[in-house]
Amino acid sequence: MAAGRLVEVYLDLLSQPCRAVLILLTCNKIPHRVHTVALRRGENKTPEFTRLNPMQKVPVMVDNGFVLRESDAILKYLATTFDVPEHWYPRQPEQRARVDEYTAWHHMNTRMKAAKVFILEVLLPTQFGTPAVDEVRLKRALSELEDTLDKLESMFLGRQAFLCGDDITVADLLAACELMQPLGGGRDILKDRPQLQRWMSRVRSAVGDSFDEAHAVLYGVRDRRRARL
Amino acid sequence: MAAGRLVEVYLDLLSQPCRAVLILLTCNKIPHRVHTVALRRGENKTPEFTRLNPMQKVPVMVDNGFVLRESDAILKYLATTFDVPEHWYPRQPEQRARVDEYTAWHHMNTRMKAAKVFILEVLLPTQFGTPAVDEVRLKRALSELEDTLDKLESMFLGRQAFLCGDDITVADLLAACELMQPLGGGRDILKDRPQLQRWMSRVRSAVGDSFDEAHAVLYGVRDRRRARL
Repeated sequence: MAAGRLVEVYLDLLSQPCRAVLILLTCNKIPHRVHTVALRRGENKTPEFTRLNPMQKVPVMVDNGFVLRESDAILKYLATTFDVPEHWYPRQPEQRARVDEYTAWHHMNTRMKAAKVFILEVLLPTQFGTPAVDEVRLKRALSELEDTLDKLESMFLGRQAFLCGDDITVADLLAACELMQPLGGGRDILKDRPQLQRWMSRVRSAVGDSFDEAHAVLYGVRDRRRARL
Repeated sequence: MAAGRLVEVYLDLLSQPCRAVLILLTCNKIPHRVHTVALRRGENKTPEFTRLNPMQKVPVMVDNGFVLRESDAILKYLATTFDVPEHWYPRQPEQRARVDEYTAWHHMNTRMKAAKVFILEVLLPTQFGTPAVDEVRLKRALSELEDTLDKLESMFLGRQAFLCGDDITVADLLAACELMQPLGGGRDILKDRPQLQRWMSRVRSAVGDSFDEAHAVLYGVRDRRRARL
């Protein structure tokens, strides 16, 4: 690690993958500086941010001039180029392939399905300034999410402590941050899922205070919403 | 590489990611055996295949008892555990991160958008036994695909020869196989895209005969469809 190496990250902590990146940085004490890019205020569309990422998405990482997008790639880059415990992204080929297998599956499953519930329950009603939720679409989204949770339990977690084996990896961070998201709408999707609850507890205790620090903004959304009801 | 190491792969060559896996195997002469799993005949739902992959999806790779799903993970595992040219999945951290960045982006973009056009033009009409295409949905899907092609050109390809740099990587295989898919419906989506056309030519010449061999089934779909019209 170069002396004085400081990673710059551009994040909105209401974005699930941004929280995963922040947790990896903080719980491993990787020297970093956070630049907040508030999506709800369109700060991802400023000329300045667009020059950094023409996709206008967060997270973005800048390490000594090297600009990287996509949380999946950022997490793996950080885990391999900083001196962090190897379990985050194991070097052993089969173990590493398990992490790559989950992170590939993640996009169209955990990420898409959990995000959809949050979008329908929180983002869309807020954007249109009305508390009306499209109940038909929400019901379908919740049913698809249940299917994804079933797969997380039976096909990834199985009898393991973490999604890809006996120790925590970047895959667990990505998944945990997605599954927390519906909490912003007051919905605990793991309520009747003891197996995933135990996994979530293991993730939380593995990363310590970083978890709640990264989720403070989401807890705020939940609490303000609760106060209004 | 273990003497006599033979990779078993379970593929349907009408599936884009399966072709990417096959091309990497054949153009690098990695010893392998292909098991065809015809999705259109439901061979992915047999008890035998379901035991191998409870997700009932292809591709699946088995290497000396190690079962791996997800093309992204399979390609990276093959490229790092077999003696193939390093350019396929560079070891240098920034270069590797570029490949991980593309493969993460791929799922919700190139893959989702190009596949949708094929599903609307070929799969759905075939499944319902009627040649009617939902023109409204198709128009929207084509417009979204154009947006993805714009991003492939401006944000990945740029002035490079390949998506992630000067040489071909597994990212190019994944992208090329997706962009070929609408050809099954007789649609050349790169028709007015000279920059992507030149890239596709570079991909084809980098992998030689493997490309057309892997696409023979798709060419067959296109030709039979053309003969019917």
